[in-house]
Amino acid sequence: MSLNTEVLHKLTQIVGENYIFTDIETRNHYGHDETEDYVFPPSVVVKPANTSEVSAVIKLANEYKIPTTPIGARTGLSGGALSIYEGIGLSLERLNKILEIDEQNLQVTVEPAVITQVLRETVAEKGLFYPVDPSSMGSCWIGGNIAENSGGARAVKYGVTKDYVLNLEVVLPNGDIIWTGANTLKNSTGYNLTQLMIGSEGTLGVITKAVLKLLPKNSHNVLMLVPFYKAQEACEAVSAIFRAGIIPSALEFMERDAIDWTLKYHDDISINVDDKVQAHLLIEVDGNYPEILMIEAEKIMSVVEQFEIDEVLFADTEDTKKALWKMRRSVAEAVKSNSIYKEEDTVVPRYMLPELLTGIKRIGAKHGFKSVCYGHAGDGNLHVNIIKGDMTDDNWQTQVPIGIREIFELTVSLKGTLSGEHGIGYVQKNFMDIAFSRSHLELMESIKRVFDPNNILNPGKIFPDHLT
Amino acid sequence: MSLNTEVLHKLTQIVGENYIFTDIETRNHYGHDETEDYVFPPSVVVKPANTSEVSAVIKLANEYKIPTTPIGARTGLSGGALSIYEGIGLSLERLNKILEIDEQNLQVTVEPAVITQVLRETVAEKGLFYPVDPSSMGSCWIGGNIAENSGGARAVKYGVTKDYVLNLEVVLPNGDIIWTGANTLKNSTGYNLTQLMIGSEGTLGVITKAVLKLLPKNSHNVLMLVPFYKAQEACEAVSAIFRAGIIPSALEFMERDAIDWTLKYHDDISINVDDKVQAHLLIEVDGNYPEILMIEAEKIMSVVEQFEIDEVLFADTEDTKKALWKMRRSVAEAVKSNSIYKEEDTVVPRYMLPELLTGIKRIGAKHGFKSVCYGHAGDGNLHVNIIKGDMTDDNWQTQVPIGIREIFELTVSLKGTLSGEHGIGYVQKNFMDIAFSRSHLELMESIKRVFDPNNILNPGKIFPDHLT
Repeated sequence: MSLNTEVLHKLTQIVGENYIFTDIETRNHYGHDETEDYVFPPSVVVKPANTSEVSAVIKLANEYKIPTTPIGARTGLSGGALSIYEGIGLSLERLNKILEIDEQNLQVTVEPAVITQVLRETVAEKGLFYPVDPSSMGSCWIGGNIAENSGGARAVKYGVTKDYVLNLEVVLPNGDIIWTGANTLKNSTGYNLTQLMIGSEGTLGVITKAVLKLLPKNSHNVLMLVPFYKAQEACEAVSAIFRAGIIPSALEFMERDAIDWTLKYHDDISINVDDKVQAHLLIEVDGNYPEILMIEAEKIMSVVEQFEIDEVLFADTEDTKKALWKMRRSVAEAVKSNSIYKEEDTVVPRYMLPELLTGIKRIGAKHGFKSVCYGHAGDGNLHVNIIKGDMTDDNWQTQVPIGIREIFELTVSLKGTLSGEHGIGYVQKNFMDIAFSRSHLELMESIKRVFDPNNILNPGKIFPDHLT
Repeated sequence: MSLNTEVLHKLTQIVGENYIFTDIETRNHYGHDETEDYVFPPSVVVKPANTSEVSAVIKLANEYKIPTTPIGARTGLSGGALSIYEGIGLSLERLNKILEIDEQNLQVTVEPAVITQVLRETVAEKGLFYPVDPSSMGSCWIGGNIAENSGGARAVKYGVTKDYVLNLEVVLPNGDIIWTGANTLKNSTGYNLTQLMIGSEGTLGVITKAVLKLLPKNSHNVLMLVPFYKAQEACEAVSAIFRAGIIPSALEFMERDAIDWTLKYHDDISINVDDKVQAHLLIEVDGNYPEILMIEAEKIMSVVEQFEIDEVLFADTEDTKKALWKMRRSVAEAVKSNSIYKEEDTVVPRYMLPELLTGIKRIGAKHGFKSVCYGHAGDGNLHVNIIKGDMTDDNWQTQVPIGIREIFELTVSLKGTLSGEHGIGYVQKNFMDIAFSRSHLELMESIKRVFDPNNILNPGKIFPDHLT
């Protein structure tokens, strides 16, 4: 849609002429995120300065019924920031301040465009800890993390974004501004709109401020890389570690190809991987007492030694730790650079991981695609990268979607679900019927209509096409 | 309202004649909970055996537009289980089974009428830990805990009910049965109806099963009772302990009167309290390594010694620990036995506690009422017991509600809210305007209407009278 001059004029009045863009370069730039190769440019990009400008833009959009897509760092993997129906691309980039670090209450108040890693580092300077660390934390924003309920490697011990959000300032689709809750650790006061907003992918409101819980920062950690001869056994070891009474601060799984491709992609990281190794677990424990961490590391060793493993690498310097984490965090990028691919974000109860992995390989074999799997095994969260490789375009278009549907059906049958941390967004919406009955989806859509009767806010996301 | 014979006949057909009651004794029995002295008997009490009977009852109620109140253990403190508009009293008592303890995934599936302490003890036998421990855990049910988002003493380290619920089977007001989510630790798949249901006080659906997260059980704890000469300083010590990098597993505050009344009420507990002592903190740390707990206890000592304190009591036997916890858990009962009272469940960011406490005393002095305060100070959750004592009935009726409103206004001005863990229910609903704007309340009510267009499920709760 192209917006009429009246609307453009009013938008200009709100944000000022330096913060409204209709040129094709800018629109394209804001029309893609990290989701495959999709590009859906908005008709206009606006960059409001603050909550009240956001509110004015939304109010205008609601009045003229203009599709409006909140745009964050565009690091998303489910297409949540894509302007599917054009309209207004609402970039939150100017709301980028850490407003208050409250050391007395262990809380921080932030605007949405604060980079997650910047937040983590800034509070760390005060001895505080914001644990949520998506792989993209060097570039993603806290607002997007909240919109997608992002996780990351430390979720296994510390929980996901939803476990750290105490209160949100939100601009509703009618332009009203509310705080969803209170700045308290406990709250039994009315419906939990804070939690309803988290993970709603920008469809219910625009997050303009967030109050987050912080923890005291731990001083020590131990990191080890355990090579397994059988990928299955790496998965089995995951729940065995918990059953031994250990809660690791990270427990990551990488298939052989994930490591190989990453080592090829980053030639500055060097790790010897024996030919027989099929998968790795990257395991971290953290705390304040190094002697306790050594006890826990030994307990973990005694668990993993029950499986067929190669020599365990203990990261004994900060540099080695950094290299191992860089390797883990670069897998997605490395896969992307290697082939056209599709990424799925399956999640199951952790003990079901081995069954999920076997099933994925079986489904791939049936439909003729290869997959590279890795992810947050401690949470049962397995990222499945389906690789085009030398598959024909025709098979890629026809067979892969059938295979993906089968993978999700398997996931749900194992009491899991479609997305652990990436969201449904644009790319997974037509699989929602696997996880939810029609009446359940209609219930969710009725909630959407309560907030957004004109369906202006991030339309074309979450809900299957047949429903809308 | 009295229900016609057709409805009673149909209800009998659903639950069987042994599980439907219209006699006044039974109706009165199910017409009260632990909220002051309110009695609101339902017209009929039904006791369905399972989810499908619950669904059939609800479907019938919806068809005939009969107010229906889910009834749990009736230990609630906000009147959530009271049948304000009579109708059907839906007792969940027969859904009382622990269905599965999944040791592989550290999960448990329960029906709503499982007593919280029974759940805790049953999983503990397998080395597992369900941390949420409301003071009433010996009699309250997990279903009610979920409906009210209950907390308890261990919330300060382990979180509240909402942090342990992975998935819920819910009967919606139209009789539909859904599972709200998946049995996974992470979930970014559609709106979080699990979290929306938690704390919705039986107004959006009837919980018939819950999948809860468990932790490995810690083996050790250290418990100490710290007497302060100034109540203010006890409150100040609370946030100082966190700032020292300690996360205690419990951090409870009791005013002098709370302890005195409790010791009088339970003459089997004996603790010497010096005349100068105005308040106590009961502090616990837990973990697997006794030597670490001793280090943490010493750190706590060095914090509290910066204030004016009397001799600290370390609970060195299991019996002493039990006695101290019994004392803390009995405060509410002891206050109740001592005087007519009203309990408020204020919650603020923890550093605001001293200001809240001073303000409460100031407001009490202004309106001529005494208060006894205690609660989960680590969470900023202060239970305020307003004591009738020798106040005239007239002042009790007129002055106290004004004072309570002022207390809540103070709480909200300190970035806190009306209820930390008891819920709004019947008794606090007319204070909701202090925490929420009219449009915010209307948004919540619109969500209620989406779920329950006929307003049959637990009507008369949460929303202020002027709104409904």
